[in-house]
Amino acid sequence: MAHVNENYAKLPGSYLFSEIARRTAAYAEAHPEADLIKMGIGDVTRPLAPAVIAAMHAAVDDLASSETFHGYGPEQGYDFLREAIQQADFAARGVDIAVDEIFVSDGAKSDCGNIGDILSVNNKIAVCDPVYPVYVDTNAMAGRAGEYDEQAQGWSNIYYMPTTAENGFAPELPKEPVDVIYLCSPSNPTGTVLNAEQLKTWVDYANQQDAIIMFDAAYERFITEEGVPHSIYEVPGAKTCAIEFRSFSKTAGFTGARCGYTVVPHELVRDGQSLHDLWNRRQTTKFNGASYVIQRGAAAIYSEEGAAQVEETLDYYRKNAAVIKEGLEAAGFTVFGAVNSPYIWCQTPSGMGSWEFFDKLLTEANIITTPGAGFGPSGEGYVRLTAFGDAERTVLAMERIKNLMAGE
Amino acid sequence: MAHVNENYAKLPGSYLFSEIARRTAAYAEAHPEADLIKMGIGDVTRPLAPAVIAAMHAAVDDLASSETFHGYGPEQGYDFLREAIQQADFAARGVDIAVDEIFVSDGAKSDCGNIGDILSVNNKIAVCDPVYPVYVDTNAMAGRAGEYDEQAQGWSNIYYMPTTAENGFAPELPKEPVDVIYLCSPSNPTGTVLNAEQLKTWVDYANQQDAIIMFDAAYERFITEEGVPHSIYEVPGAKTCAIEFRSFSKTAGFTGARCGYTVVPHELVRDGQSLHDLWNRRQTTKFNGASYVIQRGAAAIYSEEGAAQVEETLDYYRKNAAVIKEGLEAAGFTVFGAVNSPYIWCQTPSGMGSWEFFDKLLTEANIITTPGAGFGPSGEGYVRLTAFGDAERTVLAMERIKNLMAGE
Repeated sequence: MAHVNENYAKLPGSYLFSEIARRTAAYAEAHPEADLIKMGIGDVTRPLAPAVIAAMHAAVDDLASSETFHGYGPEQGYDFLREAIQQADFAARGVDIAVDEIFVSDGAKSDCGNIGDILSVNNKIAVCDPVYPVYVDTNAMAGRAGEYDEQAQGWSNIYYMPTTAENGFAPELPKEPVDVIYLCSPSNPTGTVLNAEQLKTWVDYANQQDAIIMFDAAYERFITEEGVPHSIYEVPGAKTCAIEFRSFSKTAGFTGARCGYTVVPHELVRDGQSLHDLWNRRQTTKFNGASYVIQRGAAAIYSEEGAAQVEETLDYYRKNAAVIKEGLEAAGFTVFGAVNSPYIWCQTPSGMGSWEFFDKLLTEANIITTPGAGFGPSGEGYVRLTAFGDAERTVLAMERIKNLMAGE
Repeated sequence: MAHVNENYAKLPGSYLFSEIARRTAAYAEAHPEADLIKMGIGDVTRPLAPAVIAAMHAAVDDLASSETFHGYGPEQGYDFLREAIQQADFAARGVDIAVDEIFVSDGAKSDCGNIGDILSVNNKIAVCDPVYPVYVDTNAMAGRAGEYDEQAQGWSNIYYMPTTAENGFAPELPKEPVDVIYLCSPSNPTGTVLNAEQLKTWVDYANQQDAIIMFDAAYERFITEEGVPHSIYEVPGAKTCAIEFRSFSKTAGFTGARCGYTVVPHELVRDGQSLHDLWNRRQTTKFNGASYVIQRGAAAIYSEEGAAQVEETLDYYRKNAAVIKEGLEAAGFTVFGAVNSPYIWCQTPSGMGSWEFFDKLLTEANIITTPGAGFGPSGEGYVRLTAFGDAERTVLAMERIKNLMAGE
């Protein structure tokens, strides 16, 4: 008799975005004239860069002729892309990462989820609170989370590290031993960053404890301030304790095209085994490489022309982020993020719950946000806004909020 | 202290294709004048259908403008593709599969590997011998295989079902309880098929035992004979016991483009849980959908124009398979497969080991094959040839073999 993975039954429903959709749909039905502005979901809206489009067209043409056809590619990604990544994302920042330490994939979500395959189920996991739910859910599925406590909104065997305005959004070192630590900088959802000194503390801790840091750098291209590492490998000692996830989704608009990569340094060894070799074995056995067409498109991001075009789009979003930050602050709100991130983490007006404030913005300003409580208990008292929308609509949203608050 | 998944250390080296490459390179270096014909690896060589190319170009153009841009798509695949699949691959054959039972992915290798996520580690696995290594290796990684026995070339906790000429390549029902059964028809590597009656025996067995059949139908488009199911769901009762994997790799040349799909029926329930819901949860948590561009290309396979073009390419490969079968038989060999498959499973001359015959074909006919022993102990005494090469070169290969055997 076949049995299912018993851990799935422990998962609480994932209702955040469906509940947002439900409330939004109900409001829209009751108010068909409402002009809703979506600032909730972290999906991009700007087109791919022309250089990327050209490279994808050329790659599609390659597949149209037997002379230039590409069948199975390397599971780890084509060297034309891995070499471009190594040069631009690491060597150019003075970071020594080898080409074969870079594993190209169909996206960071897959890698963040699949990385657990190479780890023992007995590892103790530590995550920030609020947090990107994928880190928690994938570990719960693998049996590392213990039991879910509805009351506490957390898992019995996961170590939660609150990141709030009170501690400057910097997680404190754990007070009990943990084995695998997820850090996201710039953070989803808070939009805040960890500086070099803060990351150094974590790297030293992980090396001392033989822990592993899972470093999610999906939003690194939004960093504008000096002193904020774009890669954890800018921090001395990180290669013996950290795996880094990168994504082209927010960098270059690949949320629908699908491409990302993961760095696993050779120096990262636990139980006498190379994590690089384990991940290589996992990927060669359970993955057949990212699409040739998409890898060609991704490589074009690193051309001179492509890099300039991508930068233009990033500036578009960065400007939106600045507009939101300034608009909310002018309306009297306390906000975090935005400076190094497409996410703006806004404190709710005194005493208001995040779902209550979500409803207020929906019904009184026709703006859709994401309630912070959906990312964990410490997200209560905040909503998340994203800078990925249309520039004019973003300005309009801030005018509405200004008027809303002026009327209070 | 972080620990790694201890099961990876138990995996034997995966040396089949690297050993083939090593022997081939050594021969080529010693004989630079040799004109080698590759009939070893199962990768396609013909270009994508013009309709697929056109659809991919149009999809790339969609991503070039904000009006037609596609960001995150449904993790389960776009309805335009799922509906086309449902109609052409199931409804047209009288098989009742719902659109939401079809999960589009980046390929069957990923799905075959990842499906284990939703199953208990305590399930007992049954596989054919010889076998596509991914079924075995992924279960070994998950801890379901026990220990590897180098002498027996097998795992202590996997139930092996020999499929050889002696039993007509039809695995016998297990003599001890098993929970998850992998079946591949048309088979990789033997090229043989299970007919409707044989599959019915397995479906009845699985339903009676509450087992699950993992049915790999990646090569179904090569079936030419009547009475051979293209889908296990053509067999009554399969929807309560089977998951089916499909691939566009061999069907339509997507080995480099990457797309496939998996069917998980709503009726498939174990431990009181819907496998469909578990897989949906797995995919929404650990996957972000296949590339929009590639899904558009895959959908074009189902257009009238695309279907005709794909059929033309399949005929090209089918003709190669017939040429190989006839050529080998004319040279005095006993061969299997080919009729419903791009794979030809050729018995070695009397008493010759499969690596020995591999070497003979390499050095005396300059043809590269795959030794059957690489797919499991019961593959000893066979080599695999593939029909995915150039038509003229395939004819040339058979002439060489004819001459080789005539000279013996």
